[in-house]
Amino acid sequence: MSVSRERLIELRRELHRHPEPAWREFWTTARIVEELERIGVDELYVGRDALADERLGVPDDDEMDEWLERARAAGADPDILERMEGGWTGAVAVLERGEGPTVGLRVDIDALPRAESADDEHLPAREGFRSETGAMHACGHDAHATIGLGVLEAVTDGDFSGTLKVFFQPAEEVIGGGGPMAQSGHLDDVEYLLAVHVGLDYPTGEVVAGIGGFLAVTQFYATFTGHPGHAGARPEEGRNAVQAMAEAVQNIYAVPRHGDGASRVNAGRVGGGTATNIIPEEAFVHGEARGETTEIRDFTFDRVRKALEGAAHTHDCEVDVEIEGNAPSAESDEELVDVVQDAAQTHPDVTRATRRGELGGSEDATFLMQRVQDAGGLATYVGIGTDHPGGHHTATFDVDEDSLEIGVDVLSEAIEAIGRDRP
Amino acid sequence: MSVSRERLIELRRELHRHPEPAWREFWTTARIVEELERIGVDELYVGRDALADERLGVPDDDEMDEWLERARAAGADPDILERMEGGWTGAVAVLERGEGPTVGLRVDIDALPRAESADDEHLPAREGFRSETGAMHACGHDAHATIGLGVLEAVTDGDFSGTLKVFFQPAEEVIGGGGPMAQSGHLDDVEYLLAVHVGLDYPTGEVVAGIGGFLAVTQFYATFTGHPGHAGARPEEGRNAVQAMAEAVQNIYAVPRHGDGASRVNAGRVGGGTATNIIPEEAFVHGEARGETTEIRDFTFDRVRKALEGAAHTHDCEVDVEIEGNAPSAESDEELVDVVQDAAQTHPDVTRATRRGELGGSEDATFLMQRVQDAGGLATYVGIGTDHPGGHHTATFDVDEDSLEIGVDVLSEAIEAIGRDRP
Amino acid sequence: MSVSRERLIELRRELHRHPEPAWREFWTTARIVEELERIGVDELYVGRDALADERLGVPDDDEMDEWLERARAAGADPDILERMEGGWTGAVAVLERGEGPTVGLRVDIDALPRAESADDEHLPAREGFRSETGAMHACGHDAHATIGLGVLEAVTDGDFSGTLKVFFQPAEEVIGGGGPMAQSGHLDDVEYLLAVHVGLDYPTGEVVAGIGGFLAVTQFYATFTGHPGHAGARPEEGRNAVQAMAEAVQNIYAVPRHGDGASRVNAGRVGGGTATNIIPEEAFVHGEARGETTEIRDFTFDRVRKALEGAAHTHDCEVDVEIEGNAPSAESDEELVDVVQDAAQTHPDVTRATRRGELGGSEDATFLMQRVQDAGGLATYVGIGTDHPGGHHTATFDVDEDSLEIGVDVLSEAIEAIGRDRP
Amino acid sequence: MSVSRERLIELRRELHRHPEPAWREFWTTARIVEELERIGVDELYVGRDALADERLGVPDDDEMDEWLERARAAGADPDILERMEGGWTGAVAVLERGEGPTVGLRVDIDALPRAESADDEHLPAREGFRSETGAMHACGHDAHATIGLGVLEAVTDGDFSGTLKVFFQPAEEVIGGGGPMAQSGHLDDVEYLLAVHVGLDYPTGEVVAGIGGFLAVTQFYATFTGHPGHAGARPEEGRNAVQAMAEAVQNIYAVPRHGDGASRVNAGRVGGGTATNIIPEEAFVHGEARGETTEIRDFTFDRVRKALEGAAHTHDCEVDVEIEGNAPSAESDEELVDVVQDAAQTHPDVTRATRRGELGGSEDATFLMQRVQDAGGLATYVGIGTDHPGGHHTATFDVDEDSLEIGVDVLSEAIEAIGRDRP
Repeated sequence: MSVSRERLIELRRELHRHPEPAWREFWTTARIVEELERIGVDELYVGRDALADERLGVPDDDEMDEWLERARAAGADPDILERMEGGWTGAVAVLERGEGPTVGLRVDIDALPRAESADDEHLPAREGFRSETGAMHACGHDAHATIGLGVLEAVTDGDFSGTLKVFFQPAEEVIGGGGPMAQSGHLDDVEYLLAVHVGLDYPTGEVVAGIGGFLAVTQFYATFTGHPGHAGARPEEGRNAVQAMAEAVQNIYAVPRHGDGASRVNAGRVGGGTATNIIPEEAFVHGEARGETTEIRDFTFDRVRKALEGAAHTHDCEVDVEIEGNAPSAESDEELVDVVQDAAQTHPDVTRATRRGELGGSEDATFLMQRVQDAGGLATYVGIGTDHPGGHHTATFDVDEDSLEIGVDVLSEAIEAIGRDRP
Repeated sequence: MSVSRERLIELRRELHRHPEPAWREFWTTARIVEELERIGVDELYVGRDALADERLGVPDDDEMDEWLERARAAGADPDILERMEGGWTGAVAVLERGEGPTVGLRVDIDALPRAESADDEHLPAREGFRSETGAMHACGHDAHATIGLGVLEAVTDGDFSGTLKVFFQPAEEVIGGGGPMAQSGHLDDVEYLLAVHVGLDYPTGEVVAGIGGFLAVTQFYATFTGHPGHAGARPEEGRNAVQAMAEAVQNIYAVPRHGDGASRVNAGRVGGGTATNIIPEEAFVHGEARGETTEIRDFTFDRVRKALEGAAHTHDCEVDVEIEGNAPSAESDEELVDVVQDAAQTHPDVTRATRRGELGGSEDATFLMQRVQDAGGLATYVGIGTDHPGGHHTATFDVDEDSLEIGVDVLSEAIEAIGRDRP
Repeated sequence: MSVSRERLIELRRELHRHPEPAWREFWTTARIVEELERIGVDELYVGRDALADERLGVPDDDEMDEWLERARAAGADPDILERMEGGWTGAVAVLERGEGPTVGLRVDIDALPRAESADDEHLPAREGFRSETGAMHACGHDAHATIGLGVLEAVTDGDFSGTLKVFFQPAEEVIGGGGPMAQSGHLDDVEYLLAVHVGLDYPTGEVVAGIGGFLAVTQFYATFTGHPGHAGARPEEGRNAVQAMAEAVQNIYAVPRHGDGASRVNAGRVGGGTATNIIPEEAFVHGEARGETTEIRDFTFDRVRKALEGAAHTHDCEVDVEIEGNAPSAESDEELVDVVQDAAQTHPDVTRATRRGELGGSEDATFLMQRVQDAGGLATYVGIGTDHPGGHHTATFDVDEDSLEIGVDVLSEAIEAIGRDRP
Repeated sequence: MSVSRERLIELRRELHRHPEPAWREFWTTARIVEELERIGVDELYVGRDALADERLGVPDDDEMDEWLERARAAGADPDILERMEGGWTGAVAVLERGEGPTVGLRVDIDALPRAESADDEHLPAREGFRSETGAMHACGHDAHATIGLGVLEAVTDGDFSGTLKVFFQPAEEVIGGGGPMAQSGHLDDVEYLLAVHVGLDYPTGEVVAGIGGFLAVTQFYATFTGHPGHAGARPEEGRNAVQAMAEAVQNIYAVPRHGDGASRVNAGRVGGGTATNIIPEEAFVHGEARGETTEIRDFTFDRVRKALEGAAHTHDCEVDVEIEGNAPSAESDEELVDVVQDAAQTHPDVTRATRRGELGGSEDATFLMQRVQDAGGLATYVGIGTDHPGGHHTATFDVDEDSLEIGVDVLSEAIEAIGRDRP
């Protein structure tokens, strides 16, 4: 295939230097669009045109304006930025290559709101492409975007017959972008969908043809509002939001298990109150519910909501429950797993072509997979192994750049095979 | 005065042998009525005629029939029993002695549903007047009834001018009889009310002229109803009543303190569930809320109720909250305390005439006190010290029979003084 | 085979009329021993000789004496009863039939401490073999014991070559008898073990050759001991056992889920306290922890124990945690499942020979299965379908007596096949 | 008396402009020392010389250095600052005026870590003496320090015979300075102690001669440390600090009430966790326990501590409980109240000389009061009414400057009277 290893590395490092969190991928989208225009695609949808109306986990206007300004200052094309105002980031690129099936490839592009290691042991620091924004590509989405562009270019130069759509999805980390991209209409004619993730504790050289076991998830932010009171003189005036929160937390973890499969709950971040001598007026729980199936997740979250409401009632508080993000469960389809495994087995640098893996976590690629599967198509979630020194989401996470080429090769080979064989 | 020490002891022992719990004082009321008829009173109201409609803590029909039958078997007068059908126990006796104020004396007559000690150290066991019913006079109401009759007889034979009403109140232990007796109409013309209690950790020879610090109280019985489920196979089918109860208990004790004074909460008896492998379908809390004032009690119980409701909501259960009994707070009036203290000080066997005491507990005599005070009258709650080997409500509680005469003398002396001086 | 349908029904009805709960199976064991002696076995171990030392869930002496006496009164052989004193119930019968493998069959014999329906719709009531003891065979162990005897007799009369051991296990319902029988030594030379259960929602005519998915379980009884106090006057003197219990219950249900598989928790029966106005001195939780593997169960129960201890510490109480019963998880072995499925498929009344089923509950047959498997042998847990009008453990549970013959036939056929083929 | 109203106002405004929180009163102490040197005192103890070793609520070194630097930049005398290094702020001034009793006056000098209103309605903003430090004198300690200096100057110029010690106490707001000042030795010969507070909802013109009802208090900061885990994949690896905190909060509020008097609890500020999908590793509770007596406070805090420990045990976490501040309860002595009331009654601007008030809150002046009372001396806590537009601790709190002169006059008059009459 035709994209050089050097170009992939160069592009990935450039993206790594400009990480942007969910719905703030202004510079990133603009940079991707530039590359797409350079490669030449048949159709290109940016921002508002790539997404349906219902986004989740969108930050406030000030926050978005700040990142938009930062993108501008970093040299992003103003015309492209204009198409993303209001945080409508992301893009869909379409390549038409004659008769054949419509194949989709989904890559996510957002970063995490955390600091990156400045340690000399950390390659991006040592080699000078460490984050310049305060955020960090600590989950490899810089590699994903690079692979997406690499595959597009490789397919352009190859023998694929059919239509290829590459989905550069925003806001995966808040489980907020998968839904609106799935409902954008661009998925409606996709017959085969490949989603891709690097790492996941698989080493460089291993490719996992079909990952399943995605837990459906709902993330929520609950705010309790009561009434303050002086803790010494007037405790009875207080309607205690921290007490309500504490009661809710206890009951969230005590939501019944489900006989049909695994469920998960977490009150991952909580807080409340202002001073030791004031009965707390406000408190919050930022948490999530998951399930092995979407039904189990729904059962679990329904009970979480009851726990939040019951606790508010007990302490005479109000509770506001905001859904921040959610994603269904999903499984990879055998027929498509076969194709990817075959493509992986023939690659000289692939030392292990694993058939199946389990995620045990959540991902909003499941929205896109489900959309395609519900319409009778096939989907698989492909893992491209990469040696990563630190764990996902940590300050020292990094990808082994050798895996970029493997990813591009295996995926474009699989896409050609799909065009040939319509599995 | 005219009632012999021996008669008082004999009568008290007879009553002690036939203890009957709340709303089951059939034999006791009948025996009191017999005495009243022997003494001769001007008016006599029994059962339904002595009480307003709203009783609390009434047992079910089977339970009442059983005790009615038992009373019949023990020789109670069938004609009197007939007037108490349905658990309308208790009586009001009126003595008219010419011009003068209307004075009330309230004594309670019910026993506790607990076994009495059979130990030889325990006087009723040794002397052969231990309970024959399974219940026990473990709070001295046998002495109260005896004192009530003794005072009536003493006043009959004495120089009192005015009207004396003696209230033989049922169901104090469930805080259920004070309310309906207070609303019966018989209190409406009472200008001075004396209530009496023996013991309370005051020794024989001490009389406390005015006890205050009654905590207002509400007793409740809450039943949670959920849905069972097999704990191994189908935990999600359960709507867990025990979990709801546990959450409620935690929050009942965590009801805010009140800046205006003391409050109390207790989940004194709880239970639920049927087997280790069944998600519990039912559970209950039998508890109470108290307050230094009626307002504090109301605040506290309102929050208890919210805790019960909130917990039910959390676990998708129903909760039914039944009010079993309640009583307001009360204080004794200085002017009447003076009268009783004077009467006590002149008695040869009174070694200590204490002015004021604090109960720190609850009593439904407060309903009667409040009724009189609200109409502009005066009330006091008098403590007649008695050496008691075991604590109140324990299996070895007993009264020192020397205190019976002291009680009769001091109270009838005080009543005569009221007739004389209209304090 | 040789046991008549009528005899099986007659025997089962006789056992159904005399249900005895765990460790109280005096009459039942004696009756089984009589049958064994009639059939003629080579070795017979009763009570103490059939069990290792460590029993769980043993009732107190009074309770056992009462049931022993009842068995005597119902005509059980006094000589046999003598061998069971102290609640050492159950038996192991050995049949030696020449060269060949040692095969075990495990049936359990105890009943449940619950009342049986007296409704005319309920066959045992209509046909006059309803329980005469107050307990009830509401889980079909009467059928199990009958099948155990039927198989023994059938094998005696058949072509089996090898050694057959039938384990009449006591105390399955409290998960208390499996452990001591597994450690009795009688399992040590068993190479193939069949365990059997009727019903489980499978209809008459269906046989499930291998049931798996047993959850490992630990049942516990925790007692909290604090200190009483008058709830009005001296709340600070109380060390509140009900509060501790409530805190423990909340945290038991909130024990973390496990990433390796399913776990379960239940506080199935709780209680505490004596009166609304006494701070509760005692409370209990009767509950259980389960896990898809023994390790998950251990993790879960360890956290349950911490919740009990932590709650006791918070409320300054003592907690005593007694393990009442426990069982490991287990799976059926493929090779043995094949044999049973083959035997089932050839039976004319078997309409469906299902290969695998999932229990989703717990069973202490797993102790015996594990013992055999750990020594290199094979085990399977066989389901014999039976139409049952009410669910297991309910008042209207009953077995379809047609399934008795199917059970005897399929199991004795499988045993002969094992003797022949040593799978 | 001799200090002009204008000087008092000028000094108070200067102090108001430089508010410094607990243990950071560098500029404030230096300014006070300058004034003391100007007035001329016989002995002067600053910082380390004015305090015993055990301080509570001391901030970390960086924080102190920052405020020290700020004080230096604002023109504080470097020689005086040197004596306060390490946050040893505050001072004791001694005036020897011949034969007579030793009288103490305690004023506190620290500010609150909160922003001050910039609204034009707010006098300090309108008149240009609003806070320049980010902190705020929102509880009138600027007035207290001013009154302390004013009294010293007035007594210098008056007829007092005896010794006067003025205690400029740091760190009252964190209940951290009263203890070390009480144990400094400077209190040991004080026979009469006056403490003073402005406002407390008493209007200008009212003086309260003796405030009591101080609740003893302990403030604590508890940190729970567990272990993180991925909430989806590895929930069992988590030892959940937020769950522990929530359990602790529920039980802190559920600490038993006390029969001997009021108690208070509050978990005023809590927090924990980092992300929705991580089992929280850390959490904290910043709270307090109070009691009407020191014994009740001790009982209550002991139970709070047990709740913290029990919750940590349940969730397999560690808990570290740091005592941040504490103060005993106290009452004002009648004899000294008389003296102050007399002094107040004769002042022309005092419209109401109230004898007694109740605080219903906590104050670490009680350490000094208790020290004097324990040695046989007398103490009273004097309220100087002042119209304050906003409540204490709010952004718009301010003192009516008319009350400064009233405070100086009444207190110096009372001190002279003590010298005269040795009450």
